[in-house]
Amino acid sequence: MSNFMREDFLLENNTARVLFHKYAKDVAIFDYHCHLNPKEIYEDKRFEDLSELWLGGDHYKWRLMRANGIPEALITGAADGYEKFLAFASCMPYAIGNPLYHWSHLELQRYFNIYEPINSKNAPAIWERANARIKESSFSVRQLIKESHVYALCTTDDPADDLKYHILLKADKTFQTKVLPAMRPDKALNIAAADFSRYIAILAKSADTKIEDFDGLCQALRQRIEFFNGVGCRASDHDFTYLPYEDVTHEEADGIFKKALRGEAIAAKEADQYKTALMVFLGSEYKRKNWVMELHIGALRNNSSRSLAKLGINTGFDSIHDSDMAVKLSRLLDHMDRDNNLPKTVFFSMNPKDNWILATMAGNFQSEETISKLQLGTAWWMQDHRDGMEEQMRVFANTGLLGRFIGMLTDSRSFISYTRHEYFRRILCNLVGKWIENGEYPEDLEAAGGIIQDICLNNAKGYFNI
Amino acid sequence: MSNFMREDFLLENNTARVLFHKYAKDVAIFDYHCHLNPKEIYEDKRFEDLSELWLGGDHYKWRLMRANGIPEALITGAADGYEKFLAFASCMPYAIGNPLYHWSHLELQRYFNIYEPINSKNAPAIWERANARIKESSFSVRQLIKESHVYALCTTDDPADDLKYHILLKADKTFQTKVLPAMRPDKALNIAAADFSRYIAILAKSADTKIEDFDGLCQALRQRIEFFNGVGCRASDHDFTYLPYEDVTHEEADGIFKKALRGEAIAAKEADQYKTALMVFLGSEYKRKNWVMELHIGALRNNSSRSLAKLGINTGFDSIHDSDMAVKLSRLLDHMDRDNNLPKTVFFSMNPKDNWILATMAGNFQSEETISKLQLGTAWWMQDHRDGMEEQMRVFANTGLLGRFIGMLTDSRSFISYTRHEYFRRILCNLVGKWIENGEYPEDLEAAGGIIQDICLNNAKGYFNI
Amino acid sequence: MSNFMREDFLLENNTARVLFHKYAKDVAIFDYHCHLNPKEIYEDKRFEDLSELWLGGDHYKWRLMRANGIPEALITGAADGYEKFLAFASCMPYAIGNPLYHWSHLELQRYFNIYEPINSKNAPAIWERANARIKESSFSVRQLIKESHVYALCTTDDPADDLKYHILLKADKTFQTKVLPAMRPDKALNIAAADFSRYIAILAKSADTKIEDFDGLCQALRQRIEFFNGVGCRASDHDFTYLPYEDVTHEEADGIFKKALRGEAIAAKEADQYKTALMVFLGSEYKRKNWVMELHIGALRNNSSRSLAKLGINTGFDSIHDSDMAVKLSRLLDHMDRDNNLPKTVFFSMNPKDNWILATMAGNFQSEETISKLQLGTAWWMQDHRDGMEEQMRVFANTGLLGRFIGMLTDSRSFISYTRHEYFRRILCNLVGKWIENGEYPEDLEAAGGIIQDICLNNAKGYFNI
Repeated sequence: MSNFMREDFLLENNTARVLFHKYAKDVAIFDYHCHLNPKEIYEDKRFEDLSELWLGGDHYKWRLMRANGIPEALITGAADGYEKFLAFASCMPYAIGNPLYHWSHLELQRYFNIYEPINSKNAPAIWERANARIKESSFSVRQLIKESHVYALCTTDDPADDLKYHILLKADKTFQTKVLPAMRPDKALNIAAADFSRYIAILAKSADTKIEDFDGLCQALRQRIEFFNGVGCRASDHDFTYLPYEDVTHEEADGIFKKALRGEAIAAKEADQYKTALMVFLGSEYKRKNWVMELHIGALRNNSSRSLAKLGINTGFDSIHDSDMAVKLSRLLDHMDRDNNLPKTVFFSMNPKDNWILATMAGNFQSEETISKLQLGTAWWMQDHRDGMEEQMRVFANTGLLGRFIGMLTDSRSFISYTRHEYFRRILCNLVGKWIENGEYPEDLEAAGGIIQDICLNNAKGYFNI
Repeated sequence: MSNFMREDFLLENNTARVLFHKYAKDVAIFDYHCHLNPKEIYEDKRFEDLSELWLGGDHYKWRLMRANGIPEALITGAADGYEKFLAFASCMPYAIGNPLYHWSHLELQRYFNIYEPINSKNAPAIWERANARIKESSFSVRQLIKESHVYALCTTDDPADDLKYHILLKADKTFQTKVLPAMRPDKALNIAAADFSRYIAILAKSADTKIEDFDGLCQALRQRIEFFNGVGCRASDHDFTYLPYEDVTHEEADGIFKKALRGEAIAAKEADQYKTALMVFLGSEYKRKNWVMELHIGALRNNSSRSLAKLGINTGFDSIHDSDMAVKLSRLLDHMDRDNNLPKTVFFSMNPKDNWILATMAGNFQSEETISKLQLGTAWWMQDHRDGMEEQMRVFANTGLLGRFIGMLTDSRSFISYTRHEYFRRILCNLVGKWIENGEYPEDLEAAGGIIQDICLNNAKGYFNI
Repeated sequence: MSNFMREDFLLENNTARVLFHKYAKDVAIFDYHCHLNPKEIYEDKRFEDLSELWLGGDHYKWRLMRANGIPEALITGAADGYEKFLAFASCMPYAIGNPLYHWSHLELQRYFNIYEPINSKNAPAIWERANARIKESSFSVRQLIKESHVYALCTTDDPADDLKYHILLKADKTFQTKVLPAMRPDKALNIAAADFSRYIAILAKSADTKIEDFDGLCQALRQRIEFFNGVGCRASDHDFTYLPYEDVTHEEADGIFKKALRGEAIAAKEADQYKTALMVFLGSEYKRKNWVMELHIGALRNNSSRSLAKLGINTGFDSIHDSDMAVKLSRLLDHMDRDNNLPKTVFFSMNPKDNWILATMAGNFQSEETISKLQLGTAWWMQDHRDGMEEQMRVFANTGLLGRFIGMLTDSRSFISYTRHEYFRRILCNLVGKWIENGEYPEDLEAAGGIIQDICLNNAKGYFNI
């Protein structure tokens, strides 16, 4: 039998194998940050074919296809699903060492029982077999989530969202997995965006109020936070190209906000002042509700103007930013912490050079309120691969208590990406196993296995209170 | 028999050994970026002794000797060749883990059949044996290139160069290796240099024209590109301490250029504006001719004023720069791409922190025109060692299609540095072999071996159209 | 018998084991940079209990406890020593992969003969056994240093210090270890500090002079350098959050200094100009005395205002900075070197991204005056762990002569942290052993063992002239 991605995939030593198979493999999943559509969960969506399921909205795969010179017609264009699938399959053999190579095959194995390495030759047969499975009645979104042993998942939702499907799912006793909202107030922060004032009107409407000044904005957001909290939200998530921090008074923030409402241009520094003021407010609200603040930093988005015009955002034209962040992050956190308004915080950076900055900055603001209240988050997006994950874990371990790490999330739009948790767990067990075999940690596998189970599930449950 | 740098040097697993010995070792070399002197190839230069061959212009070795406290007289000074060689040999045992240790011994092994680890004790005997070989009639530049199985090589040439020796070599049917020019227009870009206007006059003369404004400059460069293209040039190469990008109009570029021609001082921002305008023009020309644009970024040069005054440039006083580049690089590429004028591009950075930036930025501008049209180039200069090369390959693999990587170049001034391709291939095979043994890629060695041969040669041939 | 941190801890291959046990283990220690209190050495201090010894001033441990949600009362607060110790023990199992896990157990093993992995369950028994040992008459500071085979150690001393205890120790023939001062003139450089002018008065008094201008300051510092030199000082040490460099004239420096003496506010650029001028002066003095200049760069201190107000400095609220440094460092070194006034220099950075910058910058200013006159220093503070140390050694080896590396220091306030030298030596031997087994260096263990002994001790003795 082939050795390719079988039982001991990524497990390079015996201790790692025992840890994974005995302790990690079967633990339930808490996917505390993803981009699933709650409507599709509520309606128990089904799929046309492997192309819709796999290539539908997956800009990771699109980038890989573009790197192989595949025409856009076969990626996001008018070509039919089968042609697109064949085009994708033709790229795979060249993706040696790429996480998509592993993710795709893990998905084929776990959800389709297909163990061949995919290529142009076997792609037609795989297409048939996978589609036959997709046609089975048991292949639906709810069933996939259930089979993946998902304890809970947190979606990503605009503050103005009515959370209709979260509420319906909560009431539906036939589905056990908790599907909770997580707030993402990026639009309220992006004051320089062309549609900012339009968005503020939408937000005002959702909060059933008027927003005419900075205080009004805060009032509306507070209302939305209360509402989200009632539906089970325990986290908020922010995306920053770079970490903004500028000194700002309440009056300044108010003036900048009103300027934006009037449609006037906002200077870069003003935007950062506004963001600072609003983050300080939001942080204090999160703290009050015991929410987790997630900061995703360092995605430089929409680099290609041509592609943005043609295909829009989130279509695979983002990459890694490289600005400094230590000083501004320090000031932002300290500003919140001064008045004891710093919430639980998880940092994610796309640039691995920031791991050390974030992990050691976390250590400056720990508190008896929560175990490892500030944390370096798991490897994000373009770092979400074997090397990036191991690096993140090493930095975490070297600078803090890895046994308190809240672990993996998928950040995914796909219903079959839960295998990324398996990928993470294999890498975690391999690292810990290596340490134990190297004499760096006691070979008490029950104790080590317990820590691994904590990282796989228990720590996140405790941390998010979910 | 000693294990030192023998058959399985750097090959830590069985699969790696098979991959290297069966697939990689004997593939011809395409050295698409080097600093060889075409005159010396045409004239089939021969060498006085090992000192001339090894220490003549090799500032890598000079730096290492300086780190051992060797007096400059024995490095670039008046001491005789044998004394210099003995001084170099005395440093070697301390160079544990240094790429020069490996390069030097690979060269002794492959070109001189000498397998001892060099030190002060055996240096006199090695001197005798190596010089005896150097005296043999078969030890000439053309013979060395032939024995090294070099399919083609690209030199580095100023746009004003008459390419006399490239033309002569092309006509010489007795020598099979393609010796092609590659354009390096650094002097046309370095508008703040003291001798800029003098250089522009030389360039004008080479193009048989007058250059009185920015359009005239572009005209002359276009002429040179056509001329180079006729002699077989398919690539242009740029050296940037940091990546310059500033918004600029045609009028501004013209004004700045004229200012420089008048000998007036150019501000830093003006220089970057000029460089932006000229790069955008050059990019569109490269695109038109289907050339490859190579960007070498991050060498901070001539750090020691004293040594610059005494020894001049390129004598071993350069090191790694550390500026951010994501935003400016994004703007430069997007500027070119907007009008569909972005050529094939290979990025090289001396600072490993930039690998992630460059590799993911490449993914934003891929196209069906060329497979992996933008690429992270192989580890450059002070990263050109086991750790730097493995890191570059890991980043490439994690973010793109490693199977489409155009692979290694020497960047060298030496005729016996082709062993660096062997060094690269061993590291590549070791990495791929490890992945296969770890279950990360199918153990279909013919397929993996094919990919390795592509990386060793075929991809570059296709990419450069050479 | 358990494998946990026993004989072959961190030694993953046979060659490494031979190198460590035969060559490295028993070599004496030269701890050329630490924060020990010479008074406590002179008075041969004894300890109350394990809590005082282990937790007394160790902000590394405090941070780890805070990350576990331990209340401050049990860290720096009023709780009694036993409770604090139990609290610390309760964190340890979660510190998997953390250097403190290894350091703590190495200390238990070497100084207390305790080999269990510490946890809440066995903590009471360990407390008893360790305290029994502490109560023994042989458990005193001098005895600990002697048993640790410390050849010499350099403390960290303000220029105004009277070095009373160094002088007394020098005269005390009953204690063989050299206890030498090292100058740390941070207070003389921190012109923007609130108590700057007060400090200058103290400095003036120590030099028995008046300081009314920049020349007067230099005069006083020169006097202190002479005095320190007479007591055996051979090194000076500087802490910089970022590397300051600004062009400055003597007149400007003088004006800025007088402004500060008058209590006027100093702008950021002025402070950097002053620091530049003073560093250039100090560098020339160090050069004249053949001292070593140590530059510690990249600690962002006192991030938490609340904790600073409550607990003061050096209590565990510092983290890693991330500014660029290549250009400013180049200018500072070149400024000194221009007039041949650049002293021996060792660079330390907390940010691993700077390793490449510093190591290659060192290569620009080497000299026949001293072997590897400029060096990348060993992994510092938050990089002082298995991964950080191996990375530092790899960068050093790839860019210079690892065989000339001056090796490890503790940077510690503790009398039982000499085991960190053992930790370093294991990592060094493991790396070199792996290279040898991989065919990258000759398997002449006597030669390799000699290099390892040089790195453990001899190189530093030669470099510091101590």
